[in-house]
Formats: sequence, structure tokens, C-alpha cells
Amino acid sequence: MLNAQDNELMCRVGPGTPMGEVLRRFWQPVLISEDLPHPDCDPKEVRLLGEDFVAFRDSDGEIGFLEALCPHRRAPLFYGRNEEHGLRCIYHGWKFDAAGACVDMPSEPAQYEFSKKVRPIGFPTREWGGIIWAYIGPQDRVPELPELEYCRVPAEYRNLVKYNQECNFVQATEGDIDSSHIGFLHTRLDQKTAPASKEMLWRVNDQAPRWIIQPTDYGIMLAAQRNAEEDTYYWRINQWLMPYYTMIAMDLEQKRGHGHIWVPVDDEHTDVWCVIWSPVEPLTQAERDGILGGPNPHISSLDPSTGKLRATKSNHFLQDRHVQRTQTFTGILGVREQDTAVVEGMGAIADRTKEHLGTSDSAIIAMRRYLVNSAKAFVEGREPQEPYDGGLYRVRAWSYELSRNIDFMESDKVRELMGTMVV
Amino acid sequence: MLNAQDNELMCRVGPGTPMGEVLRRFWQPVLISEDLPHPDCDPKEVRLLGEDFVAFRDSDGEIGFLEALCPHRRAPLFYGRNEEHGLRCIYHGWKFDAAGACVDMPSEPAQYEFSKKVRPIGFPTREWGGIIWAYIGPQDRVPELPELEYCRVPAEYRNLVKYNQECNFVQATEGDIDSSHIGFLHTRLDQKTAPASKEMLWRVNDQAPRWIIQPTDYGIMLAAQRNAEEDTYYWRINQWLMPYYTMIAMDLEQKRGHGHIWVPVDDEHTDVWCVIWSPVEPLTQAERDGILGGPNPHISSLDPSTGKLRATKSNHFLQDRHVQRTQTFTGILGVREQDTAVVEGMGAIADRTKEHLGTSDSAIIAMRRYLVNSAKAFVEGREPQEPYDGGLYRVRAWSYELSRNIDFMESDKVRELMGTMVV
Amino acid sequence: MLNAQDNELMCRVGPGTPMGEVLRRFWQPVLISEDLPHPDCDPKEVRLLGEDFVAFRDSDGEIGFLEALCPHRRAPLFYGRNEEHGLRCIYHGWKFDAAGACVDMPSEPAQYEFSKKVRPIGFPTREWGGIIWAYIGPQDRVPELPELEYCRVPAEYRNLVKYNQECNFVQATEGDIDSSHIGFLHTRLDQKTAPASKEMLWRVNDQAPRWIIQPTDYGIMLAAQRNAEEDTYYWRINQWLMPYYTMIAMDLEQKRGHGHIWVPVDDEHTDVWCVIWSPVEPLTQAERDGILGGPNPHISSLDPSTGKLRATKSNHFLQDRHVQRTQTFTGILGVREQDTAVVEGMGAIADRTKEHLGTSDSAIIAMRRYLVNSAKAFVEGREPQEPYDGGLYRVRAWSYELSRNIDFMESDKVRELMGTMVV
Repeated sequence: MLNAQDNELMCRVGPGTPMGEVLRRFWQPVLISEDLPHPDCDPKEVRLLGEDFVAFRDSDGEIGFLEALCPHRRAPLFYGRNEEHGLRCIYHGWKFDAAGACVDMPSEPAQYEFSKKVRPIGFPTREWGGIIWAYIGPQDRVPELPELEYCRVPAEYRNLVKYNQECNFVQATEGDIDSSHIGFLHTRLDQKTAPASKEMLWRVNDQAPRWIIQPTDYGIMLAAQRNAEEDTYYWRINQWLMPYYTMIAMDLEQKRGHGHIWVPVDDEHTDVWCVIWSPVEPLTQAERDGILGGPNPHISSLDPSTGKLRATKSNHFLQDRHVQRTQTFTGILGVREQDTAVVEGMGAIADRTKEHLGTSDSAIIAMRRYLVNSAKAFVEGREPQEPYDGGLYRVRAWSYELSRNIDFMESDKVRELMGTMVV
Repeated sequence: MLNAQDNELMCRVGPGTPMGEVLRRFWQPVLISEDLPHPDCDPKEVRLLGEDFVAFRDSDGEIGFLEALCPHRRAPLFYGRNEEHGLRCIYHGWKFDAAGACVDMPSEPAQYEFSKKVRPIGFPTREWGGIIWAYIGPQDRVPELPELEYCRVPAEYRNLVKYNQECNFVQATEGDIDSSHIGFLHTRLDQKTAPASKEMLWRVNDQAPRWIIQPTDYGIMLAAQRNAEEDTYYWRINQWLMPYYTMIAMDLEQKRGHGHIWVPVDDEHTDVWCVIWSPVEPLTQAERDGILGGPNPHISSLDPSTGKLRATKSNHFLQDRHVQRTQTFTGILGVREQDTAVVEGMGAIADRTKEHLGTSDSAIIAMRRYLVNSAKAFVEGREPQEPYDGGLYRVRAWSYELSRNIDFMESDKVRELMGTMVV
Repeated sequence: MLNAQDNELMCRVGPGTPMGEVLRRFWQPVLISEDLPHPDCDPKEVRLLGEDFVAFRDSDGEIGFLEALCPHRRAPLFYGRNEEHGLRCIYHGWKFDAAGACVDMPSEPAQYEFSKKVRPIGFPTREWGGIIWAYIGPQDRVPELPELEYCRVPAEYRNLVKYNQECNFVQATEGDIDSSHIGFLHTRLDQKTAPASKEMLWRVNDQAPRWIIQPTDYGIMLAAQRNAEEDTYYWRINQWLMPYYTMIAMDLEQKRGHGHIWVPVDDEHTDVWCVIWSPVEPLTQAERDGILGGPNPHISSLDPSTGKLRATKSNHFLQDRHVQRTQTFTGILGVREQDTAVVEGMGAIADRTKEHLGTSDSAIIAMRRYLVNSAKAFVEGREPQEPYDGGLYRVRAWSYELSRNIDFMESDKVRELMGTMVV
């Protein structure tokens, strides 16, 4: 549990809130590159940390990320004309370049040079790893981009998809570092008798793993120890990276990575990014197709026209009770729908004063402490330092079968493995 | 009228409010038995007095009525698996029995016995008279069930149906003890020229009845005197029973009873229960069918999938102005739709400071005084006593034609009749 | 820009607010005559200045404009029966005449004469110029009706249509006195190369007009000077008349007038009236048809069943990006849809602290000053005087081509023209 005051401190992300200010000191993934597919394409609306923006790609392919409303009389620039090197407001024709400077103001007599009196309304942007990034924090503290593995592989090695979830970003994130739910929420009823893999069998057989929670410079390393064979343990190392990145343990062969980004849209909405990548090879078409379709999709009900799930709280996430009785633990189709059902069901912002946390929740407790401490440090006037080093994000989440004799945190073998985490 | 402060006191029902605490000292009808049709069936969500719950029927047929969210990390138990003798949360597999005790906690190492540290999340329940009852008040003051006649007759003698109304429970209830509206809201235009019965003719001919309002141990007896034949009066006795039961006068032969229960869902929503029963014989299939269908249905637009009416404030309750001009007083189909139109039209909580109450509103004034006094008594530390005796609810609402010479409150004849009210 | 305090003062219109009280001292256009087409027709709901009303036409054709809820127990009179000379509540049959007096109270014994104790719930009304007017201000200060030209011409010389817009009335009005947006928001891309008229060419060629803003007894005269031919200026005179009337410059031949009325429904909604009229001849059927249809409609998406536009903020006003690239400046069909997109896009009440106003905004600045000063005068106890004289509204908005040698504000020629403004 968390007291009500710390819960508020941790969850509120609007301008001027402590957590909002901490978050603003990081680069924000705001769009997938394909959302702005070509120069002079249609602009996009973006809501981020309780503020509204418009994003566009100019004639050179540069990304503009501007305040949503024209500084003149607050007409929405989203309706604007994406013209030669700038977005022109439909109301009075003011035109803004990708940096947000007003470069044409036809409604005003030229001799007054009024356009020079209007400060630029743009923010720094980057395009990297298939992602459009924006930075809306203090302009004298622009950090490095996080050098996540999935941003550094070739485009054909990764897949990005995102959707909007109706709850606070912290409880959304918690669902991903909560490793013990894997043995329940996402399981099939025949998993114990007909496990799909050796790993799955180990996970089903040992539903109460032992945890090592290790704070790091980038966030927290979460190591779960499960019984594997008689003389071995099955180790799964997940990662949580400030302020809202998660990576789930790769397969034993370290060929496929899975990660999420939990970008706060506002206090009560989160853009959930789902990333799948390989460090070694292109993804197959079947893998890509299986993300939004097939018998066990990652997301089963994405509505591309709204960016939301068709399965919602009000339709009970299309839960099929017959399927729940006979095939899957939940009767809800889609890994993300399963997670969304439980985290949205907590309410827009979970009331953490009423929880009863067990040993399986130590990762969640550690992440909350990290976030609350960051916000408190900010209130006390201290700026976060570490996340500015993009290289810290070169870490990997892995799984491994190790002899039971090895002391995970002390052994040379693990030190060696820990070394490989930075890739 | 009522001052704003007393109106708030009377209408607010959430945890910690005086009226909410008074209401919590009674058993609450929460579901019709058929809503949980068989052991291990699908659970149901229930919202009651501003709080959320989940109800389920276990493998023995016992009813569990639990807090809506798992005490672990607040996932909704509604999605849970109704397994062998317990409801299992889909998030981490915690399982709760019908009493709300956590009987399995597979995500935690067994040796910690963490499950014993989690207090039960269930409430007392009963199943009686076709109704599932729950009690969410102080556990040392559980009252007797109210021994309402319709609960004591065989199942085939009664019919229960309910729907959700979008206003406070008090104004919903007022509509049922407001006997003078019967001659208007629910009438046909040809009633005067072609009355359906002798009683109907009396009601149409005497639209301003004289009232005797008698506070009782269980609530209020409301006696309306109308002119009948030259030497007789037509008496209709309605009943209001704490905290939200109403019974409308039976026919002259005392063969059919009609009642409502107005259960507060929260400050601005009410579950309206409609009960029809006979003390002497099974209801006919035609009677049952006429409740939701036919030319003059009790409810015309119930949507079983939502439990709400299809006729709403925003579609003007499907009022047909041509029918209003030519056939019925309102042009609105359905007795409940007619009542709902006026009580929802007052706003979510009626502003009683702007009313002008007449003599015909004495029953409403008396009920408000009863409710407000109950809440004030609670504030002053006094607990309600009477309603704990279930036998007080063995009262009946009746109608009778009596000689004009009889003094209703004093005569032996009426004392004898009053005796028959307790059945 | 405007500070936050003045912005609140200017925009809030509910009972008891300073601006709300100023507005209540004027007649309010509430319905088009055809909305109540004949005696004893169906009543209409009206929301005005944050309050709810019901309007009906009685058996003599008189208009009743009453409080929305019955003074008895607050049932909505809208559902009422429009009977012989009065509207009868469906709940208990109380009947009110066009003045709002309770003329029948069948639910109460006649001898108590309770109906005389209920004060009338009606307000003064007028029907004039095709418009139903109501006055809800202090009854000892009823002003004259505004003698607008379009109210004084024969019915076949004018066309009235209205719709409901989801923003405050001030920003809605601003859009109409903001003459510089005409060269952008409502233009076709081929206007410069193939202008539809001489005036259109002048407007496209000179997008930064010079302004003369002249406060008057009735509001503000807004004169825009544009270059026309080598030795002439093109003058367009628009009018803003207290508290929410606008008139756009007539064509050069002064044959067609265009005006709007921006009636505050509540703080965040405005009823927009669109008026087209001729001072000299009947409108053609083609003109009338072109208002809601055809290739360049004034309103393209009116839903008569709701009085709202089908093009909304949430569907991006049905903007067609291809049309925007190839044909029109906005890709939004309908002059009103274009204006609505920008003014609703500012938010329900525009945040005027973040604007950057230029010389082209002097009319808007003047109108705000007029409104804010009116509200401040009211706070200081001064009543508005001028608007009570209906003759002040006999002004016209005109356009003219004048020699560049004429000093607009000083010349006899203009004095003469100004004389013609009062028609």
C-alpha cells in the first residue's frame, strides 16, 4: 500500500506537478514514424502529460512538435495547412516552421513586424528507432536519447504498435513488472498438462518465484528465480527503466525481446507502446501478423481509427465466460486486453491505500519508491542526473537456466552475464 | 419544500453520510434470485449506496457478496473464475469463499501464511422470497429480514422485475406515495366516460382525496378518502415502510398486491423493484406477460442487457404527442416510464427549496420528516430500533368501500380492518 | 489578451453573474416563430443564460415562456398537455396560462384556493420579425424590442435558421467581427486567380485591411479599408450591437444583408442564429435552398432533430484533407462549420491570457472592452441605458467603393453615407 499523499505525488503528471516535472526532463515517444508517413502529410494531434500539441512533418521531412493552439487567437493548428516548410493556421493564415517560429503573418501589415514579437511555439524533436520523440522540459537540460536496443536494430528487426488506455501510467506500468501474474492472467487452462515450452512448464509449476530486486542507475533490475530441473533454477530478468520503460525477459536463446513504453497522456490516460524486436534477425511476417491477429494476439481489439481498444470496461472486455470455463484463465482475448481489464478495473487512479502487498509485489514496491523519491527529490530542488546518459539504456532483459549452486548476485558466472546485459 | 441542508441530509447515501449509515442498518435487496441462476454461475456486479460489490453463487448454492476489488492489488473480482467453492481473481489467482475469506493465495510462498493476514471481504447474505439480500452495516447489529407478504407467498404467487433509474431514491419513492397523481399521470382520456372499473370511476370523479397520514412503527400508513356512492367512501390505504418499501392499495377483493422497492445505488441512481403478488393464488401467465408488454404495460421499454429503460430523458421518454392528444394523459407508454419521466425530470436530486406543497402532499411531507428525523437521530447518536423486528413488515395495503357514517380512525369496524392489515 | 479575472467576468452568464445580469436586461430571441407553428401545438424546451424554460403557444396564438419545472413538485412542464388556453402538467394536472398563472389545480380541494398562493412562473414575450422573444430580467425595466432591419421587412424578404454551438457566446461572437479571417478561413484556393466578384478580388489582394473602430450608442461600428482600384478604397462596415448581434457588410448594391445573433444558452453553449435578408425584395427559393445545401452552404451539416451540427470537434468537422490541398483553404464544408471548428477548438471558454493580438484584432479588443465595462458598470451599480431604445438598432452594415481622397471619418460624403446607415 501507499499513503494517499504519496499516491497523488506519484500519479499526477500535469504541468507544475512534481512528477510531471520529473517526467518532462526525459524525451517522450510521441508518435510512430509511420504516423507522419511523408513530407507535408496530414498533421496529428498529440496529448502528452496533460497538455495538447500538434505534430507535423515538413517539406524536408523534419518533424515539428508545436503547442496545439495558434498563439494568435487560439485556433487549433491541427486543422492547419501543411504547406511548403510550415504549418499554416486556417483561421488567419499564420504559418509556423518545424521549430515553431512564425514565418508568415499575412493578416498583419508587414511593416509592424508583429511576427517577430511572437515567441516560437515549438519543442525539440528527434526521429530515431522508428519513433518520433519530443522534449517539452527545460530547454537548458535536453538529455540524450535513451539508447534502447530496439531503437538500434534495423527497422525490419522490430515492430511498434500503440493504443490508448484509460488509466494512470503508474498502474499501467506496474502490470508489466508484476511478474507473478504471468502464471495466471495470461495462461491457458491446459498449460500444466500440455505446456507450450520448457519455460512455460517451469512457470506453471512454480507460481511463487523468489525475487531479487536491484536498484540501478537506469531504474530497477527484477530477477525472478523459479525451480526448473532438479538441479537448476530458471532465472528471468526484467527491467524497468526511468521513467516508464519496461522490458520483459527474452527467451532462453535471447532471440526475441518484448518491451512496453507507458507514456502518460494525462493523469487518467496512458499511451501504451508495444515493442517486439530481435537483436539478430528480421521479424517474420507471421510474427508481425500475430501481434494484432491470430489465435493468441498481443492485442485483439485495436480500433485503428481511434487508437483505442474495442474491448472496454463497459463491455467487460468482451469476456467470454464459456471460454473462461474451458480454455483460458480469463476468457478475455488478447494479452493487452487481459492486462487492461485488471488495471483499468482499479479505477482511473488506483486507490493504493487499500492494497495488501505480498512478497510477490517487491518489484512494484521498489518502482514506487523510485518514482516517489524522484518526485520528492525534485520538490527539494534536486535534478535527476542519471537518465541523461543515453548509454544507460543499452541494457537487456534476459532469461537463463542456471545451476542451483550458483549464488546469483555473487557468482562470477552471473557477473559475466550481467556484463552481457549491456549490449 | 425542504431547506437545502435537510435535503442534502435526506438524499446523500454514501459511506459516512448520516442517511447512508441509517440505510446500512437494514437488509438490502440486491439481486433477484434468478440473476444468479445456479451454483458456480457467472458473477454479477452490484453497486449499492455508492459502493461497488460483486455477487456470486458458490458450488453449494451459497451467495457471496464481496467488495468489488481484490484486496491484493485492486483487480475487479467480477472477472473472476467462479470455481469449486470460491471466486478466484484472474490477476494473481487469489480465491475467496462465499464469506469473503481468502482460501487460496498461489502467488505467495505458502510458508508465509500471508492469506491469513488479509481480512475477509464478504458481507452477510440471505436468499428469501425470490430475493438475494445483503447486509453491509455494522456486523454487531444485523437485523431480521423484513417479513413482507410477497416474500412469504409461494414463488408462483409473485413476480419480480427491476430496472435502474437515474435519480435519487427519495424522489423516486415520493412518486409512489403521492396518491393524488394517479388521477392524472397514469390515466386514459376516456376514463371518465368509460372507466375500466367502479374504483377507477371513483378515482376519476374525486381527484382531490382527503388524507389521513398515520406514522407507525414500520413507517407511515397513508389513507385516502374519496367519495364513492352516495352514502359510501372509497378508502385506499397505501404503506411506506422504512427505509424504502412502498405498497399500493390492493383491489377491493384483496386479491392482488402491488409494491415497489427503491434501493439507492448511489446519490443519483436508484434500483426500482416492481413486485406484483397475490396472497391467495398463482399469478396467471397473462398477468406476468402484461408487466413488460401488452397494451398497458407496467414497464414498456426495459432493456434486459443494461437493466435500464430505453425511454430516457434525452429521448423525452418516447412521448407520442398524438397519443397524448387522443388517448392518454401523457402520451408516454408504460406506468413506470410515466413516473420516471417526472421524477428524473426534477434533476438527479430534486431541489426541494423551490416546491409548493399542498394538502395532497401530506404523505410526502410525513415521509420526509420520518427520513430526516432518522438521519438526525443517527447524528445525535441514537440507533434506529423498530425496523429490526421483521414482523412489523407483515402489514398490507388495502382498499375498501365504507359507509360515510364510519369515523375511519375511531370506529370498531376500522379497528377490525386495521387488524387484518397484519397478515 | 485579457487577464483571467476579466475573462471570467465577460464570459459567465448564469443567474447572479454580472454579465448574466447585464444580458438579462435585453430581450432574448429564443425561438423561430415556426418552432411553435400553430395554436395549442407541442411545447418546446429552451435553455437560456444557464436557466431552463418551456415555451408554448396557447389557443389564441399567445406565447407562454415559463420556468421549466412545475412549481408544485418540479415535474417538467415540457411533457405537459397544451390544452384550451394553458399548459397542464402531466403529474398532478396543474394548468398554467401564457402569463404563467396557475389557472387550475385539480389535485387540491377548491376551497383552499391554494392556486392563488403560487406566484406566476411566466415571463414577458413578444413575437415580431419571425422571432419569439422573451424577457427574463427585472420586470420594472422591460426595454423596447431592437428594431433590427430584418425584423421590419416582410417575412418573404428574410430567412432565419439557428443551431447550437458548444462554446461560450463571446468567442462565438468574436468570430463574426474578426474581419481579417475572411481572406483565409472561408476562401477557395482559386480565389486569387478566378475571383467570384470584384469585391472578392479586392479582399484577396489586400489581406491586411486598415481598421476604424468607432464605439457607438448601440455597440461598435467596424470599418475596414482595403485597396480597391488604383484611386479607390473598398470600405466594409460591419456592426456589433449590444449585447450579441452582428451584421456583416452588405454587397455594394446594398441588396442583401447577413447577420448573426449569438444567444448564450449557458457558459459553454451558444445558440447561433443566421439571418439573411433583403431590404428591397423577396429572397429567391435558390437563395433559401443555398443556406443549408448546395456547393457552398452557409451550414452544411445541421441535424434538425437535435439542432446541432453533425460536424463536430470529435469528428474533426468532417475535414477533407484532399479538398483542403486542392480546393478550399480548410477542407471543411460550410461557412458555419469553418467558424465553428476554430471557435470550439479554443475550448469551451477560450483562455485569453495566452493570446497575441495584432492590429487586425482591434475590433475584438473594442468589443471585449465594451462588454467588460458593461459588466463592471453593473457591479458598481450603474444600469445600462442606451439599449432600451429600440430605434438604435435601425442601423445597417454596408460596403462601398470610395475615392482614396476622402477622409472616411471627416468627409461630407461619409457623413451622408453614415446617415443612410439608419434605415
